[in-house]
Amino acid sequence: MKLWQKDKTSLAAVEKFTVGKDREMDAFLAPFDVLGSMAHITMLESIGLLEAEELTVLKAELRKIYHEIQEGNFVLEADVEDIHSQVELLLTRRLGEVGKKIHSGRSRNDQVLVDLKLFLRHELQLVVEELKSLFDLLQQQSEHYKNHLIPGYTHLQIAMPSSFGLWFGAYAESLVDDLTMLQGAYRVVNKNPLGSAAGYGSSFPLDRELTTSLLGFDSLNYNVVYAQMGRGKTEKLVAFALAGIGATLAKMAMDACMFMNQNFGFISFPDELTTGSSIMPHKKNPDVWELIRSHGNKLQALPNEIAMMITNLPSGYHRDLQLLKENLFPAFQALKDCIQMSKLMLENIRIKENILDDEKYQYLFSVEVVNNLVLQGMPFREAYKKVGMDIEHGTFSPEKEVKHTHAGSIGNLCTAQIAAQMDQVLQGFPFENVDKALEKLLNS
Amino acid sequence: MKLWQKDKTSLAAVEKFTVGKDREMDAFLAPFDVLGSMAHITMLESIGLLEAEELTVLKAELRKIYHEIQEGNFVLEADVEDIHSQVELLLTRRLGEVGKKIHSGRSRNDQVLVDLKLFLRHELQLVVEELKSLFDLLQQQSEHYKNHLIPGYTHLQIAMPSSFGLWFGAYAESLVDDLTMLQGAYRVVNKNPLGSAAGYGSSFPLDRELTTSLLGFDSLNYNVVYAQMGRGKTEKLVAFALAGIGATLAKMAMDACMFMNQNFGFISFPDELTTGSSIMPHKKNPDVWELIRSHGNKLQALPNEIAMMITNLPSGYHRDLQLLKENLFPAFQALKDCIQMSKLMLENIRIKENILDDEKYQYLFSVEVVNNLVLQGMPFREAYKKVGMDIEHGTFSPEKEVKHTHAGSIGNLCTAQIAAQMDQVLQGFPFENVDKALEKLLNS
Amino acid sequence: MKLWQKDKTSLAAVEKFTVGKDREMDAFLAPFDVLGSMAHITMLESIGLLEAEELTVLKAELRKIYHEIQEGNFVLEADVEDIHSQVELLLTRRLGEVGKKIHSGRSRNDQVLVDLKLFLRHELQLVVEELKSLFDLLQQQSEHYKNHLIPGYTHLQIAMPSSFGLWFGAYAESLVDDLTMLQGAYRVVNKNPLGSAAGYGSSFPLDRELTTSLLGFDSLNYNVVYAQMGRGKTEKLVAFALAGIGATLAKMAMDACMFMNQNFGFISFPDELTTGSSIMPHKKNPDVWELIRSHGNKLQALPNEIAMMITNLPSGYHRDLQLLKENLFPAFQALKDCIQMSKLMLENIRIKENILDDEKYQYLFSVEVVNNLVLQGMPFREAYKKVGMDIEHGTFSPEKEVKHTHAGSIGNLCTAQIAAQMDQVLQGFPFENVDKALEKLLNS
Amino acid sequence: MKLWQKDKTSLAAVEKFTVGKDREMDAFLAPFDVLGSMAHITMLESIGLLEAEELTVLKAELRKIYHEIQEGNFVLEADVEDIHSQVELLLTRRLGEVGKKIHSGRSRNDQVLVDLKLFLRHELQLVVEELKSLFDLLQQQSEHYKNHLIPGYTHLQIAMPSSFGLWFGAYAESLVDDLTMLQGAYRVVNKNPLGSAAGYGSSFPLDRELTTSLLGFDSLNYNVVYAQMGRGKTEKLVAFALAGIGATLAKMAMDACMFMNQNFGFISFPDELTTGSSIMPHKKNPDVWELIRSHGNKLQALPNEIAMMITNLPSGYHRDLQLLKENLFPAFQALKDCIQMSKLMLENIRIKENILDDEKYQYLFSVEVVNNLVLQGMPFREAYKKVGMDIEHGTFSPEKEVKHTHAGSIGNLCTAQIAAQMDQVLQGFPFENVDKALEKLLNS
Repeated sequence: MKLWQKDKTSLAAVEKFTVGKDREMDAFLAPFDVLGSMAHITMLESIGLLEAEELTVLKAELRKIYHEIQEGNFVLEADVEDIHSQVELLLTRRLGEVGKKIHSGRSRNDQVLVDLKLFLRHELQLVVEELKSLFDLLQQQSEHYKNHLIPGYTHLQIAMPSSFGLWFGAYAESLVDDLTMLQGAYRVVNKNPLGSAAGYGSSFPLDRELTTSLLGFDSLNYNVVYAQMGRGKTEKLVAFALAGIGATLAKMAMDACMFMNQNFGFISFPDELTTGSSIMPHKKNPDVWELIRSHGNKLQALPNEIAMMITNLPSGYHRDLQLLKENLFPAFQALKDCIQMSKLMLENIRIKENILDDEKYQYLFSVEVVNNLVLQGMPFREAYKKVGMDIEHGTFSPEKEVKHTHAGSIGNLCTAQIAAQMDQVLQGFPFENVDKALEKLLNS
Repeated sequence: MKLWQKDKTSLAAVEKFTVGKDREMDAFLAPFDVLGSMAHITMLESIGLLEAEELTVLKAELRKIYHEIQEGNFVLEADVEDIHSQVELLLTRRLGEVGKKIHSGRSRNDQVLVDLKLFLRHELQLVVEELKSLFDLLQQQSEHYKNHLIPGYTHLQIAMPSSFGLWFGAYAESLVDDLTMLQGAYRVVNKNPLGSAAGYGSSFPLDRELTTSLLGFDSLNYNVVYAQMGRGKTEKLVAFALAGIGATLAKMAMDACMFMNQNFGFISFPDELTTGSSIMPHKKNPDVWELIRSHGNKLQALPNEIAMMITNLPSGYHRDLQLLKENLFPAFQALKDCIQMSKLMLENIRIKENILDDEKYQYLFSVEVVNNLVLQGMPFREAYKKVGMDIEHGTFSPEKEVKHTHAGSIGNLCTAQIAAQMDQVLQGFPFENVDKALEKLLNS
Repeated sequence: MKLWQKDKTSLAAVEKFTVGKDREMDAFLAPFDVLGSMAHITMLESIGLLEAEELTVLKAELRKIYHEIQEGNFVLEADVEDIHSQVELLLTRRLGEVGKKIHSGRSRNDQVLVDLKLFLRHELQLVVEELKSLFDLLQQQSEHYKNHLIPGYTHLQIAMPSSFGLWFGAYAESLVDDLTMLQGAYRVVNKNPLGSAAGYGSSFPLDRELTTSLLGFDSLNYNVVYAQMGRGKTEKLVAFALAGIGATLAKMAMDACMFMNQNFGFISFPDELTTGSSIMPHKKNPDVWELIRSHGNKLQALPNEIAMMITNLPSGYHRDLQLLKENLFPAFQALKDCIQMSKLMLENIRIKENILDDEKYQYLFSVEVVNNLVLQGMPFREAYKKVGMDIEHGTFSPEKEVKHTHAGSIGNLCTAQIAAQMDQVLQGFPFENVDKALEKLLNS
Repeated sequence: MKLWQKDKTSLAAVEKFTVGKDREMDAFLAPFDVLGSMAHITMLESIGLLEAEELTVLKAELRKIYHEIQEGNFVLEADVEDIHSQVELLLTRRLGEVGKKIHSGRSRNDQVLVDLKLFLRHELQLVVEELKSLFDLLQQQSEHYKNHLIPGYTHLQIAMPSSFGLWFGAYAESLVDDLTMLQGAYRVVNKNPLGSAAGYGSSFPLDRELTTSLLGFDSLNYNVVYAQMGRGKTEKLVAFALAGIGATLAKMAMDACMFMNQNFGFISFPDELTTGSSIMPHKKNPDVWELIRSHGNKLQALPNEIAMMITNLPSGYHRDLQLLKENLFPAFQALKDCIQMSKLMLENIRIKENILDDEKYQYLFSVEVVNNLVLQGMPFREAYKKVGMDIEHGTFSPEKEVKHTHAGSIGNLCTAQIAAQMDQVLQGFPFENVDKALEKLLNS
């Protein structure tokens, strides 16, 4: 029964409406709620609001609950309001009155805030790890297929020679920028809101620097009004980061669907990874890529959804924020799935040989020839005119070879330099510190 | 006349449609186009594609054109297609055939790409400078009004004591996170796409590292396909950054409109900054805040617009990208105006004294009293019950004072720590390097 | 096992990824899939592709399955791909080979299309019915509280007298326009796509007019390519309609939260419908309204999400479309819940008496007084000046009464005329025809 | 000088910021402002608030101003605040004090509201007329090219035979549904808000039914609070309608760009309508289609932008609404341009002959053959197996002919029926009444 109910009963319909899917969403937060509580009570003890022995038993039991969660043995019971109450309930069941002390000096609001931050930080780390692995694969394939030329299109018209080396490499480099934006979001996430109470602070002499350090946060959301204001804003910034990655994956999927189309026919995949039909043997439906594209684009709409839900709310907590979880939380799994599926597809990709032999690609080299004439000293307009004439007179027969040497070109993919860019971005994530801090907190 | 027209004429309507507002947008890019050309020809000379004397005269003339642009003496002539052609035309008019050489080894595509990057980088720097100044003002006002208590709301219900110190300070700290995201976008922007030609590189032995250094870029967009893919993506990431700031300003404006509402009546502004009516003396319409809010929310919709326009386009250039400029380019001015207007308003804000004296705020201190009892040793539930009883019996009369001491609370705003966070973010921007590089390029 | 698998096995991960939540979503479509099949086989028999006896047994069994679905006794078995396969499986289990004949002359694509249309049409009807009931309540409350004056705000500044009669009535009238837009979407929905096969028609001499009539559709999606193109588009148009209603509910909720705020204090609700705290007796958190607002705003983001997922897909089916269901299908329940909750709240609303007695509303009548002087013959500028002077000299003491008589004003709410507008819109929905047709189909 | 300024001066920067582009936007509203004033004063005279002679001279002068606007001889002078003031100023300059009487019984707010409605109604009518013309062309081309077969794609994989008859016809039919939605928006627009004053009505005994009839509105926005609430909402609903059309044009453009791509090569256009290069003779860049697609997608983002700017604003006027005009007003011209360009392109389209002769389309007819076997009595699974075997053994050689007869199929395009659907929608627009009413008002 909730504190505010006093002797009255909420109507069941209201209860159902207000709870909605929130209990489901709470499952995502469970382990982080326990970690947050461990840091909080450690701090409470340090400022004299908890006895040392109380801390010891509470931490031991919280550690146990943490492991129960990890092992899938934690249940949000039917009549328990939320994850925070469930944890408190388990503690009081097992330890008696002392269990209630984990709530001292905290409000439900800052508890949710810190849970959210810990959850988002954790998920962002997982996304980074998945992306690094996709990046490595893209770079490998870029090197492997660096001599596989394809037509490059502008305006979707056959334009100049390109290569699968460039194509794979482009998406690898795209991930470097996506991770740069994600790192911005990560830094915003990686600040501790705990101690802001209901958004206006409290008269308890909380040591917020201590919980910051215990939870491995880089810094604090100092101002308590801002700490609360971060709710919704943080989710939106994280959604920006996910949207950027979604856009990259969706674009790659669009290319892949087009390249699989028989009019292009540049790539194919094993039957297991496509759907087809025995009476249409050429039909290999790229369902996996289509769903990656669709998920990617759904992610692109997520920041807007969150913005729409929080725009023009005055400062201070509003219950509206509860619903932000419903599309955001599952989005991480969708994104991780899409990255893994992309890897599966790219590992098994089959590239057609000698694509440029097809007659329709004959003028692909005309710019090359012009440029080569220029390099040999002919003025551009003249070279251009000469090639135009050759083509008009049917005497244009270029060597179908590309000798690009500058940085980032077909003949000089700069794979190592791009990898170095990636490493530099990765070094900006303090994952090791975070992991160590949480490890230490759990085992203290 | 365009190269591709040969002996045929485009229909005027098609011409009008395809050009659209692009010539207008080109005005934003003009100075950056000149800088890009200066770097490009310096590089051309270094690889032997331009004579030293040619470089000297071209650079001198480009420098002149740059200053003409800065002084407002540059015009895109009626029958000239775009800014790039205009610059080339001026050069050939003034210098003869050599003027055409600035286009060697370049494509219109990578010229636009680098112009865009230079423009966006410049505008982001201006935004950062404006924001820093708003940040400083917010921090000053936070310190100045730190003892002005106001009710803090949750669910828009009177909840706990807050202060104008907290309110101003919250928005200051919000800007730290907004700049953190903006820095992510800035880093993506600050890479050189020049040398990618039409998105597939070229046979010229371009020294892309040299132009990178000349233009003060931090690094390259190495992969030429990715360099082209950055078009649209970069604009969207920048829009994310602007949207974040827009959201902060809009929220502050929403608070301000509400606080100015006579039912709240916490703040007011000089007549010059509001609109009103002599027959409604209490009416001080917050038009400036309303327009800041509206602009801020318009900015929030910008990333979505850009995403909608580029989603599911296969890789390679498409003319669709042209239209991205139309809402994005003017957005910078709108944002800078909003920041300046916010400063003007906040400088002139008048805060009502003794807000909490009003009877409707009497229960604001009930949580305080409970917490203080707890701190004196009473168990929470008991303290809670006692205060509930006092209120019910009409014997609740708290001391209307707040003694919060923890970090970020009313009594401990952590203004210096938040300023340190801001400094740390600002140090992550390489503005000095960029300014120096461009200065050097212009005067070389 | 799927037809296309031949002797190969899909990887389990791919299967999981491609199925996603689609089986869950299929539950929404189950009854409509059966209805679509009943119409389809009736048509097949009419063109000689099914024997009369076959039709009889198939229809009897489909009717049974329909009732099993309605009673909750229908399960999508673990290894069955989708709802269509499940229905076919039940039929073959119970009737033998003839069960497979329901698929003749159809493709999975047009089966999904017709299911979607029937489902959306049904849900839109339910939404209309709920809205009508909310409309009636708003009109009743408008009449009931027509003399309860409140301040009217412009720029959120106290401006002119308004009333709860106007406030309730405004939201009633808003629903008339919302239903007008919804009717546009309904008309687009109420056209039969069945018979378009995979989007390119078939060699079967299908009688599409017959299925149109049997399923109570108003007309056909004639062109088979367009029938397929309707997928995604239809969902988006329906989402527009839902978004419009969501916006109205969210705005009403915003007003309600503000009116409940103690600085306004215009309305309140029984404790059962709010959350609060015994130590903050004035705090009645409007959680229900906040969640209505949040759901309403989430609905506002839905059309954009759908647009983002289908934009720039070339014509023809793509698997991307599958994911559109996941946010759209549950949106109907959310919307219906919000309407019901709005009704519950509005039925129990408590309006404060004599709101305008408060001194801060004293100048509310100044425009009234000016206008009355004008009506008595004084030129406007003069009247305005006089009132301005009276106010300045402290001699302004208006009669606090409003005598508005024009249509739609405080004294003339036009409740009946607005009800007539609503009736006219409602008469544009062919619900009776639809219900009759389905009734007849089920019992034929 | 504004009324509210009294003896004080606004700061110039504030003035510039608050005015923004609004004067530019006002140009769109000018003729409608005059019409609104003509109706208003006619009504004022009818209720005795204006003398008959005053009405006569005012109407004569307003008519003159209307024609000045139409002829481009109307200027918003530099120091005049807005269009409404400019009209009033012209009247007083030319007629003396009586000119000011047009403002009696009106507020700036309802004047803008009615201007907006008249403008939007007019523009929607123009859009409908343009779309009807595009529809007719699409239907003609559909009939003209009904025997031109092309591959139909699902999953972008070659699937079944389609035709240009179907392709053109699909987009024609798409416009029927788009106009159905637009009609919903039109109906919402076509209601008179005039007489709502600042959103709370007035003490003047206004005859709102009279202005409704004079301005050719179908009905009223009765409730004055709702009339004001319509601001923003109306714009958003209109944007929904435009977005729907934009989506159809963008999709058609995407198809066209793909069909022009040389890997497809289904269609081409005269050189004047594409851009190209003499050294890449096969390259015909579809710039016009790309810009149609880009504009179409920009339109798709418009409703979201408007929603973002008005979401969570409490009821009553806010200055935020001013900025809605800036992207919405120019959107009509962009849309009309896109429709005209689409027509120009479709009129000049060149369709390749015998597309299906290419070997890669050989299995296109396999489903056809299976279905024909079924129609000849073979069970589906058996027919499917036989065709699969024929293909596997290389003995599959179908007649490349399509004999579809059902409604909406290749052989039975139902062009007349779709035209009838269009006519039915068009008859739902009361354009004739509107035109007559305005004609009468102007000439009365």
